[in-house]
Amino acid sequence: MTTPNFSEKDTAYMAHAIELAKKGRFTTTPNPNVGCVIVANDMIVGEGFHFKAGEPHAEVHALAMADTKAINATCYVTLEPCSHFGRTPPCAMALTKAGVRRVVIAMVDPNPIVAGRGIAILEEAGILVEIGLLGDQAKALNLGFIKRMQTQTARVTVKMASSLDGKTALKNGLSQWITGPKARIDVQYFRALQSAIVTGSGTVLSDDPSLNVRFSELTQATGFDDQINESELRQPIRIILDSHNKLTLNEKLFNLAGKVVLVTLSPRDDLHSLACIAEVEQIIGKNDGHGRIDLQDLLAQLNRYEINDLWVEAGAKLAGEFFKQQLVDQFILYQAPKLMGDQARNLVNLPNYSKMDEVVQLALKEVTLIGDDIRIISDRD
Amino acid sequence: MTTPNFSEKDTAYMAHAIELAKKGRFTTTPNPNVGCVIVANDMIVGEGFHFKAGEPHAEVHALAMADTKAINATCYVTLEPCSHFGRTPPCAMALTKAGVRRVVIAMVDPNPIVAGRGIAILEEAGILVEIGLLGDQAKALNLGFIKRMQTQTARVTVKMASSLDGKTALKNGLSQWITGPKARIDVQYFRALQSAIVTGSGTVLSDDPSLNVRFSELTQATGFDDQINESELRQPIRIILDSHNKLTLNEKLFNLAGKVVLVTLSPRDDLHSLACIAEVEQIIGKNDGHGRIDLQDLLAQLNRYEINDLWVEAGAKLAGEFFKQQLVDQFILYQAPKLMGDQARNLVNLPNYSKMDEVVQLALKEVTLIGDDIRIISDRD
Repeated sequence: MTTPNFSEKDTAYMAHAIELAKKGRFTTTPNPNVGCVIVANDMIVGEGFHFKAGEPHAEVHALAMADTKAINATCYVTLEPCSHFGRTPPCAMALTKAGVRRVVIAMVDPNPIVAGRGIAILEEAGILVEIGLLGDQAKALNLGFIKRMQTQTARVTVKMASSLDGKTALKNGLSQWITGPKARIDVQYFRALQSAIVTGSGTVLSDDPSLNVRFSELTQATGFDDQINESELRQPIRIILDSHNKLTLNEKLFNLAGKVVLVTLSPRDDLHSLACIAEVEQIIGKNDGHGRIDLQDLLAQLNRYEINDLWVEAGAKLAGEFFKQQLVDQFILYQAPKLMGDQARNLVNLPNYSKMDEVVQLALKEVTLIGDDIRIISDRD
Repeated sequence: MTTPNFSEKDTAYMAHAIELAKKGRFTTTPNPNVGCVIVANDMIVGEGFHFKAGEPHAEVHALAMADTKAINATCYVTLEPCSHFGRTPPCAMALTKAGVRRVVIAMVDPNPIVAGRGIAILEEAGILVEIGLLGDQAKALNLGFIKRMQTQTARVTVKMASSLDGKTALKNGLSQWITGPKARIDVQYFRALQSAIVTGSGTVLSDDPSLNVRFSELTQATGFDDQINESELRQPIRIILDSHNKLTLNEKLFNLAGKVVLVTLSPRDDLHSLACIAEVEQIIGKNDGHGRIDLQDLLAQLNRYEINDLWVEAGAKLAGEFFKQQLVDQFILYQAPKLMGDQARNLVNLPNYSKMDEVVQLALKEVTLIGDDIRIISDRD
């Protein structure tokens, strides 16, 4: 490994690899988004990205395209090439075999157990390896994957919609619609990026949501670029918290195709006798001592589903609990330019704080107008 | 009056006149902001703006600078020249006397009683008058003045600060500080633009505010441009609603120099026996039938103070009442990236609406990051 000294051309090729990686953003989970560009004599001779688990890695696509032009070429890849024998031999070995001279890597593998192994394979073969070019952009491609690799829990995004005075429904429960159609389409875009969506039985009972991605709306979203067609659309796993077994499983979301994980505090024996269209699995949560599902235990249990990005679309109680326990990595709030008043329903339930420095503090990341509404994205402070 | 056909040069000169007009924005109230540019042979030979009531109008400054170069020149002025004899003869007459050949006017006088009279004086003297160049920008200079001229009531802006979940204080009343120092400095900038500031006795008793403009903070604000020095700083009239005579007049704001209008439902005889530093006047409001001060009547009564821009910096009840009665022209909300929870205090008290189309609907005008906070400006929808 040498001290990197990247040229403008290096940067442009890596930026292209990052753009390629983004094309997999709707489909790669639980795998990371990766893009690869192979350059010989200042020409791109191969490029590719990872589309879906079970399909070839980005480097494999790029090498196939480059063929013998890969000899003495430079390979730009957004993530350290893999070192493990999976469905295919390790990519680090494939690059070695193809005869590339130099490999530029945006970021090392976030999994501490294997980090550096791909690099070692390349260097042992005498390949010049340079690391860190556009590293922050590469990390931004895979925030959920990185978090899961490093902590064995998903990256948690809470999404809510409210009026300017932080109200989510009238006192009588009416909430359709607070935000406008463009904001609701934008939600479809974000949902399509998630590995799983969490909600609670209260929301299921009051709104009877589908919690799926509607392709016809997704295609209208800003940022959608026709990368996938309807048959390639992946539905996030729906995770439903029902601590008091209130759901009948006749609710709409149980009768739409896709996977549903029902989280309860006690086993339900009637699961297999109920004829749901969804593929329903049950996991038993830990009682948090107040008759609710312990969220930290839940996040740990959910690791079995290899969830990179977990999207919480819940009511004031469950969302508030995620915030209170500091489990939220990102908060996306759609705000409509409305005032609903003190009697309307609150955004999040939180303890009765007695000092200003106890409240939930976030860091603004991005504020954007979406139609007639505002989208405020903030991160953990 | 001819059908206007403005050139690029015309537009540039009028844009300059508008920039000049803005220089009076802290000081002209109750007069409008006006800028004037006189051009001869493609050269600016005179320019000026109105600084303060009692001082010369923009045209007078520009004509004085142009002197004999005004003969056959073109005059660009952001507002129809006045036609009334005040401290000085009408500007329309001064332009006529100076021998200008053409007058370009961005907007006619908003006062329906005198609108067109200045133009008539010019046209009768054989001057070419053209109207409407950058009219929208000219109107934006004087939204409060225009509203007062047309409706005999001030333009009302409600300003509030909250967390993302619309909370203004903890349950125990603590609110310092929700927003950061840059947002608080920004408030000083907006306050300095106002003719008057309204609040209620509840806010006075709980926060003991000064409700004045602090020059040292104003000078740090984005948008402040050293146009005024500390001795030229004008303090908005402070208007305090005290329907139940709860105030002792020992509160801080009564002991800072400047004018205070105390609005009560019954006369207070002790006013002149109390030694306040502020110049306190009393007006008697109309009972709205619920023991509160009728706000529409108040706005009508306040017309005697020639208030163009009225800034409401009040609590949930009084601010809510302005919204409920549709008296708000503009809403400025500073939002901190915090969540304070359901038990914290609400932004605005409003009726228990039973349908979504009954809630207060606003129209977003501008969303800006101010330090670590968001400033959301919305208009009446």
